[in-house]
Amino acid sequence: MIFPSPDPLHLGAILTALRARHPLVHCLTNQVATNLTANALLCVGASPLMAEAEDEVAVLSPDVLLINLGMQTPARMQSARVAVAAARHRGTFWVLDPVAAGALPSRTALALELAASRPAVIKGNASEIIALAGGQGGRGTDATVPTLEARASAEALARRTGAVIAITGPEDIVTDGQRTTIVKYGHPMMAQISGLGCVAGALIAACLTVEADAVLAATNALTLLGWTAERAAIRATGPGSLQIGLLDELYKIGSEPVRTP
Amino acid sequence: MIFPSPDPLHLGAILTALRARHPLVHCLTNQVATNLTANALLCVGASPLMAEAEDEVAVLSPDVLLINLGMQTPARMQSARVAVAAARHRGTFWVLDPVAAGALPSRTALALELAASRPAVIKGNASEIIALAGGQGGRGTDATVPTLEARASAEALARRTGAVIAITGPEDIVTDGQRTTIVKYGHPMMAQISGLGCVAGALIAACLTVEADAVLAATNALTLLGWTAERAAIRATGPGSLQIGLLDELYKIGSEPVRTP
Amino acid sequence: MIFPSPDPLHLGAILTALRARHPLVHCLTNQVATNLTANALLCVGASPLMAEAEDEVAVLSPDVLLINLGMQTPARMQSARVAVAAARHRGTFWVLDPVAAGALPSRTALALELAASRPAVIKGNASEIIALAGGQGGRGTDATVPTLEARASAEALARRTGAVIAITGPEDIVTDGQRTTIVKYGHPMMAQISGLGCVAGALIAACLTVEADAVLAATNALTLLGWTAERAAIRATGPGSLQIGLLDELYKIGSEPVRTP
Repeated sequence: MIFPSPDPLHLGAILTALRARHPLVHCLTNQVATNLTANALLCVGASPLMAEAEDEVAVLSPDVLLINLGMQTPARMQSARVAVAAARHRGTFWVLDPVAAGALPSRTALALELAASRPAVIKGNASEIIALAGGQGGRGTDATVPTLEARASAEALARRTGAVIAITGPEDIVTDGQRTTIVKYGHPMMAQISGLGCVAGALIAACLTVEADAVLAATNALTLLGWTAERAAIRATGPGSLQIGLLDELYKIGSEPVRTP
Repeated sequence: MIFPSPDPLHLGAILTALRARHPLVHCLTNQVATNLTANALLCVGASPLMAEAEDEVAVLSPDVLLINLGMQTPARMQSARVAVAAARHRGTFWVLDPVAAGALPSRTALALELAASRPAVIKGNASEIIALAGGQGGRGTDATVPTLEARASAEALARRTGAVIAITGPEDIVTDGQRTTIVKYGHPMMAQISGLGCVAGALIAACLTVEADAVLAATNALTLLGWTAERAAIRATGPGSLQIGLLDELYKIGSEPVRTP
Repeated sequence: MIFPSPDPLHLGAILTALRARHPLVHCLTNQVATNLTANALLCVGASPLMAEAEDEVAVLSPDVLLINLGMQTPARMQSARVAVAAARHRGTFWVLDPVAAGALPSRTALALELAASRPAVIKGNASEIIALAGGQGGRGTDATVPTLEARASAEALARRTGAVIAITGPEDIVTDGQRTTIVKYGHPMMAQISGLGCVAGALIAACLTVEADAVLAATNALTLLGWTAERAAIRATGPGSLQIGLLDELYKIGSEPVRTP
């Protein structure tokens, strides 16, 4: 079943809820993306928290958790395990971003280990999702196959893990193995903004705090990111100004009625 | 006693001195804020240095030291202790930014330990300062109480530690327990720029290298940040462009006579 | 022998090749510069990879390696050694950026150790290169001597190490000890953008993947950076907007014919 684009009023309701509740989004993420991720979360009303020391993540009680495997270190790997265990114990939703799974054996192994701990959503590029589903991985952190080729892998991985799978790319795919949505918003220059895939994971996490249906949360988050990027691209003269304009649009989209994207 | 807004010529003199001396500002800070902090310091004429390895911080002789507790790791915690001990031994001013004190027990403990080592200034948000003064802490890294409610806590903490206390928020408070100044510059969108509180700490540190009265140094630094943010907000269309415009204004404010803010 | 400015068609050919091949540029760099470095590489068509865990760098096969010594930690130091050994074993070019050599004894020692492992290019500021050549070092991470005073040191260091030496500053110098080029593009505000020297090292690394003559690769990379900064400076109102405009110009310079800089 292919879902239609999400109801724009629903995205509006999600944004209103985020800005009313300021959910605490704990991100264990990589240092390329920390600043942009924190700023994107602040712009949509969430409250980012980036603690990564093992004793600190053990005692935090965020509203949602994001585990991004980029720029892994042994200490952060251990903190990720502790944070995931604490989230499961509390019953808190968490999102897994398996950066470079398939390209680096240690990342693939860690991603598969964590994927077995019931993430609400696994968000990756096509290469990463195919690798986790058992296929051939990519190189580095960039996808080397088209998004739509990964759809079958995503659906299989969703059924195996119980997680909703979100693939970002020129077209985004979100699936729980039964329901599949395709998000067609965005701009080609998004691929030249480092850490934007990581931001997508953080926005999915934020949306999960106000929308418990993970297919809808992820679809709304990717619509939000793609649509604001399209709006920012109108005035952008390159990836630098697109990144800045995207933050401005993420901020503004809460201060006016959301029209049909 | 409430001080009037600082003499604008004094801020002009501070900027002129910073740009003439290029003081070396050693920042042990968190990775969300490193880039913005370094850029802000460069824009006002200071020379940022972000080394954090224990053997390196032990041998550095900066003109001033900033210890920001955000994104703590055991190694950085140890380096913070070593850097503070070295600063005290040399008689160098240092600034403490107790990020998430009150929200994370380990941060509260470390902040209290370091606060006993004679920082020139402790800069936090209202929740952090209240927590250090013995009150109820916040959650995450955002303040959960209005700035002015923390005034009594700040004055008590100043008297207990001997440090000047600076609280950032919609209104900033600076106090040594006897003299208290209130800085009313700034813009609401500053709250959506991650790491801007950390930048405030770094600017206070920079100002301490050319103004030994810590109440005046902190008041001028917060005036500088708030006023340039107001100027940048005139053209900004959101927090993204505000951050970029703020750096531009911090740079320009040295190249023209400083008028009354 | 002084080379003339590089043939602009050559720079055009390098950009075309980068955008066709998307070389994997592995950067072991510091956290002030990771985001800007990754974005600059993406803008010129390269694929950045910032992994730093020892077990990960041991198994990567990038097209080129950058080792930047800024914000050193013992773990990253060890990963640098492993990555360099792997690069030498594979015959992959690698670039050394000896941040703060001369200012910090441990950095000088590490830089000299790595400089003996056949980097294709060593890129530093004047103080760092003079320190590696055996002269008096600077303080912090900023150069304290004019670029041209370091020319003799650079030529001596090139002959001793077999590496091409690139000195960035108001004028850039590139030398292999016999051939020396001087790049006169750029803008004074570049000195107020944190991590831009680190970006220069990354662009040199990227150019090495499509131009094996390291003098030409480094000269083209520094011309690219200086020239796009000049173009961005036309509209910039300070270092903040210059940084953003620079990324836009790095992106655009591939999508139109390259004219004589």
